[in-house]
Amino acid sequence: MAFNALIIMATCCRAFVGILLVSLMVINSVHADPEALQDLCVADTKSSIFMNGSPCLNPMEASPEHFMTSALRKPGNLSDNPLGFSVIVTTPANLPGLNTLGLSMGRIDMAPGSAIPPHIHPRGSETVFVVRGALNVGFVDTSNRLFSHKLVTGDVFVFPKGAVHYLQNIGKITAFIVSAFNSQNPGTVIVSLATFASTPAIPYEVLSKAFVISVQEVSQIRKSLGGT
Amino acid sequence: MAFNALIIMATCCRAFVGILLVSLMVINSVHADPEALQDLCVADTKSSIFMNGSPCLNPMEASPEHFMTSALRKPGNLSDNPLGFSVIVTTPANLPGLNTLGLSMGRIDMAPGSAIPPHIHPRGSETVFVVRGALNVGFVDTSNRLFSHKLVTGDVFVFPKGAVHYLQNIGKITAFIVSAFNSQNPGTVIVSLATFASTPAIPYEVLSKAFVISVQEVSQIRKSLGGT
Amino acid sequence: MAFNALIIMATCCRAFVGILLVSLMVINSVHADPEALQDLCVADTKSSIFMNGSPCLNPMEASPEHFMTSALRKPGNLSDNPLGFSVIVTTPANLPGLNTLGLSMGRIDMAPGSAIPPHIHPRGSETVFVVRGALNVGFVDTSNRLFSHKLVTGDVFVFPKGAVHYLQNIGKITAFIVSAFNSQNPGTVIVSLATFASTPAIPYEVLSKAFVISVQEVSQIRKSLGGT
Amino acid sequence: MAFNALIIMATCCRAFVGILLVSLMVINSVHADPEALQDLCVADTKSSIFMNGSPCLNPMEASPEHFMTSALRKPGNLSDNPLGFSVIVTTPANLPGLNTLGLSMGRIDMAPGSAIPPHIHPRGSETVFVVRGALNVGFVDTSNRLFSHKLVTGDVFVFPKGAVHYLQNIGKITAFIVSAFNSQNPGTVIVSLATFASTPAIPYEVLSKAFVISVQEVSQIRKSLGGT
Amino acid sequence: MAFNALIIMATCCRAFVGILLVSLMVINSVHADPEALQDLCVADTKSSIFMNGSPCLNPMEASPEHFMTSALRKPGNLSDNPLGFSVIVTTPANLPGLNTLGLSMGRIDMAPGSAIPPHIHPRGSETVFVVRGALNVGFVDTSNRLFSHKLVTGDVFVFPKGAVHYLQNIGKITAFIVSAFNSQNPGTVIVSLATFASTPAIPYEVLSKAFVISVQEVSQIRKSLGGT
Amino acid sequence: MAFNALIIMATCCRAFVGILLVSLMVINSVHADPEALQDLCVADTKSSIFMNGSPCLNPMEASPEHFMTSALRKPGNLSDNPLGFSVIVTTPANLPGLNTLGLSMGRIDMAPGSAIPPHIHPRGSETVFVVRGALNVGFVDTSNRLFSHKLVTGDVFVFPKGAVHYLQNIGKITAFIVSAFNSQNPGTVIVSLATFASTPAIPYEVLSKAFVISVQEVSQIRKSLGGT
Repeated sequence: MAFNALIIMATCCRAFVGILLVSLMVINSVHADPEALQDLCVADTKSSIFMNGSPCLNPMEASPEHFMTSALRKPGNLSDNPLGFSVIVTTPANLPGLNTLGLSMGRIDMAPGSAIPPHIHPRGSETVFVVRGALNVGFVDTSNRLFSHKLVTGDVFVFPKGAVHYLQNIGKITAFIVSAFNSQNPGTVIVSLATFASTPAIPYEVLSKAFVISVQEVSQIRKSLGGT
Repeated sequence: MAFNALIIMATCCRAFVGILLVSLMVINSVHADPEALQDLCVADTKSSIFMNGSPCLNPMEASPEHFMTSALRKPGNLSDNPLGFSVIVTTPANLPGLNTLGLSMGRIDMAPGSAIPPHIHPRGSETVFVVRGALNVGFVDTSNRLFSHKLVTGDVFVFPKGAVHYLQNIGKITAFIVSAFNSQNPGTVIVSLATFASTPAIPYEVLSKAFVISVQEVSQIRKSLGGT
Repeated sequence: MAFNALIIMATCCRAFVGILLVSLMVINSVHADPEALQDLCVADTKSSIFMNGSPCLNPMEASPEHFMTSALRKPGNLSDNPLGFSVIVTTPANLPGLNTLGLSMGRIDMAPGSAIPPHIHPRGSETVFVVRGALNVGFVDTSNRLFSHKLVTGDVFVFPKGAVHYLQNIGKITAFIVSAFNSQNPGTVIVSLATFASTPAIPYEVLSKAFVISVQEVSQIRKSLGGT
Repeated sequence: MAFNALIIMATCCRAFVGILLVSLMVINSVHADPEALQDLCVADTKSSIFMNGSPCLNPMEASPEHFMTSALRKPGNLSDNPLGFSVIVTTPANLPGLNTLGLSMGRIDMAPGSAIPPHIHPRGSETVFVVRGALNVGFVDTSNRLFSHKLVTGDVFVFPKGAVHYLQNIGKITAFIVSAFNSQNPGTVIVSLATFASTPAIPYEVLSKAFVISVQEVSQIRKSLGGT
Repeated sequence: MAFNALIIMATCCRAFVGILLVSLMVINSVHADPEALQDLCVADTKSSIFMNGSPCLNPMEASPEHFMTSALRKPGNLSDNPLGFSVIVTTPANLPGLNTLGLSMGRIDMAPGSAIPPHIHPRGSETVFVVRGALNVGFVDTSNRLFSHKLVTGDVFVFPKGAVHYLQNIGKITAFIVSAFNSQNPGTVIVSLATFASTPAIPYEVLSKAFVISVQEVSQIRKSLGGT
Repeated sequence: MAFNALIIMATCCRAFVGILLVSLMVINSVHADPEALQDLCVADTKSSIFMNGSPCLNPMEASPEHFMTSALRKPGNLSDNPLGFSVIVTTPANLPGLNTLGLSMGRIDMAPGSAIPPHIHPRGSETVFVVRGALNVGFVDTSNRLFSHKLVTGDVFVFPKGAVHYLQNIGKITAFIVSAFNSQNPGTVIVSLATFASTPAIPYEVLSKAFVISVQEVSQIRKSLGGT
């Protein structure tokens, strides 16, 4: 079980570096989300055993450092990213003490005009607190109703588990948001990438019918999104 | 709490009548998915109380009919549906005895060449048993890997909770599939509709950036999918 | 952890070969039923570690084959079985991708006149879809009320977790049923075997009092059921 | 929702008065077993609403009396009961404060030579502490292995959820046992009654095949067990 | 179910106004924390029904406002509070859309030198993100080991469910922290108040033995903490 | 994973030997509390693997002895303990069969006049059955209301998960109580020790403010409680 995923996503489509960084880190590690069943089950990031959640260190080896992380102090480079945002979340690699506790936290930084594309978290609901900035955010329910709202500094919004949602910076400054999930590993499915840029590809005829576009248009979108 | 949703979806985009029928029925009723906490908690479909799951009938009024349904005996009209498939699932309206038991079942019928567009179930994993036909099916994980396989009569496949997945009839006959979910109300998010055809719309600039297409193309896809 | 249970049950009482095949397969493997805590936790069927559910393969080694099985294509030999039925279910051995996803599926085939004896599933509710045939099925609640109904092709019925239930083929053709459970390992307790044919035996005086029969009758039933 | 079940079972088969008292009380009330979601959710035993668990009193009306019961101070009349045992458990009627807390307690008293017939609890595991006496107890797993042991004063034994189990007083004095369940409403299925004495009856041919006895013997056992 | 708790705590000991405000609001409303069982179960704050969690609005009446709150825009008055801190959290009253989603969020503001006294959350783990400031924080496990660490702007720390923990502002500016819980209603037990200032009091001899202090000292601490 | 904790606590403060014995045993072993996912998952007390719950023995090696314990036959030495009580609970070491079953049991013995100091169980609710004696018991909710009651032989009381509670022997004889938890490892936080006697200490200024006592008084209480 290695947590060296930070390098992996470099080869992917530049447009989604921000969230991809998160989702690749997440998928690269196998960790757990049940009830906490003992005081301390610090993730053993060097174990070679895979299970439904991480193996733990001997609790006698747990130390205060395992419950604290500085990995969220700074955002990624926003100008480096075509979509202009950065998302950094806690993982067993940077915060092993979260293992078995069933929650996680992230920082989101968004350049003016940037947007986080529609995505879902298959294993957790999310709340966001706007530390600074002005946003338009929303989610879509299973009858395709959109629930969207403008947010300013100090506002809180909630996205239900499994609902497609997005965030858009509609202010003039870089927005800074703290987010929280009720899962150690909520997972992220970016709708456009999962459908058009999977490896290998979903059959083009299926996507053609689903989006009512031609097979050529499917191919074009796939290319733009970095599908190979 | 009314279960008269069967009529509602008629006004929607014709292309998705099959699954829409299901998802609208589901969203129109509020029902439950916890541990079964008593022998019998038959959904009281006439109650005016909403809760995290359905209120129940007095257990003394429970009858064998509550635990049986004939609603899945026949598929919907396949030729009537541009996408050529039909999905019918159990709901508290047609199978009130399922309330609190944490599972549900569906029948899927697909004309030759038809496809069920990429979608996710936010609250349940799904298994499918191919009663008759030949299919290509697959799901995408959160690192955008596609896991797809061909299935013939008698084969079983599984789609993890929250993963984007599709089914495609690659045979010459109408396919007939029995599916099962580990949730009374798994919910269905059809990716193309949730992103391009929500009411109201997700901001066009957000979709434009997400799919790397022009705002005009966003507008065109929305129109084709019945967005208003 | 070996999944070679298919051979074990041959020595048991012939009368229950069908379901026994299932239940022995189940008990021989240790697998899991919690929330899915990551995208992929394919059962590692060669691991020597036992836990509350199966250890997983390195997720990088997961392949589409792990999520598909052909093990349910054909029923067992019905004429070979005094009770005239066959049950085959998914297990970590034949469908390792189901590990941690919390559901499973089975196919049931029943010769005309055959019956699946009263049994319970301690860890899952069950739904059945009648692909073909005519059945009488029922379950008993904890106040000993029987909820029974006749089913024909296309009907669905549900058995609550832990309730004693049975299925009887009342038609003239072999019945074919697809069943689903909201557990990867629901387990099966055949009431007659668990009480009269356990190894070693429950004290005869206890069974004598429970069924209000003589100790000789207890001994006779035990012998008929293959108790040794 | 009435908790007047104490009178109901009087008409039933005398042989099982002890446990029947319990199981009928349980089935007559609808109560809950999820995570406790607030400090206090005292069962409102006068509510006319049924749900997956009990409605609660306004928490401002909760009082210390709701969290204490004297209902287990004395056993039922052992000589009055052909099987010679008495079981009294906590219910929302006698201990409304247990609502939503996910556990319950019982006292078991057994005359010398008496036995509690094979039964299962569909919604809870059970531990027993022998306050006084000598017992033989055991449970059967799903491969029909019996795990049995002798217990004396001060010993503890555990019965897994959904496993068939029994208790037998093998000492010369009345045994007194305190039992606990990890469910507010574990439920009780007495195997012999659920199979042979349900209302209405399971088809005789099904029972005949299951126990390998004649239809006449089925009928005789049913009569002895009070089936009507 | 009324959410007018904001006024209630005014009579209590001034020293704990900050957190008390939160905990009284929480206890005054009955809300839920299970799996989200449908898309939308917006808390119906006007319902007179109490259950394990809040009743919901008709989902057709759900609006975007239900999923957004501005209640956390400003801290309470720090100088007004002897302990010098303010905690404001989401509740069904200010964010009804969180109902059934299993998480909540809070803002914590702490004057220089102030401390949040040792407390536990009985129903949730907590993560904190330091938006601004310098803190010393820690929790104690069940073997009485203290896990403490200094935090600066951008750091994250985690407190396991049910563990005694504290926060102390060790910087020269007012600290601002965003916290998150994996429960809609984690609850707060302030150790000093629960033990010495309950209504009525825990017997003085019990507290005297527990803290190895005289009954007079118990009485004095109780008085200082506002016990009546 | 060693269960040799019985010796460890000897060096601690004498006043709390009884409960400390329990809590140290508990923290020293890593065990599990999820749904039972198979029939048998007997704790493997010799495994060197740590996880969220114990690894299991090969189920073929499970024996009846694993499900029975005699460890609760006798109380600890009451006169040896300044607080005059003894608590012995089941653990994976003395009852490995409880692993994954989600409950545990204890025996409590209290000399006349003794008290079990205010404590909480972070992972389980508790019920107590008074086998013999007269007690005053109580718990405090999150609004600091005390719910207390007198109990005599045969009475049952319940303490909600995470609530501060205490027991006091108010009779003239040694009291004997059987307790049960809906967790394999409920954990114990003794309020006075966790706050004043942790290793290392919570900052004295924090405790001083929390209890409104001087730093010298904090130091004195810490010393009396054995803090080093």
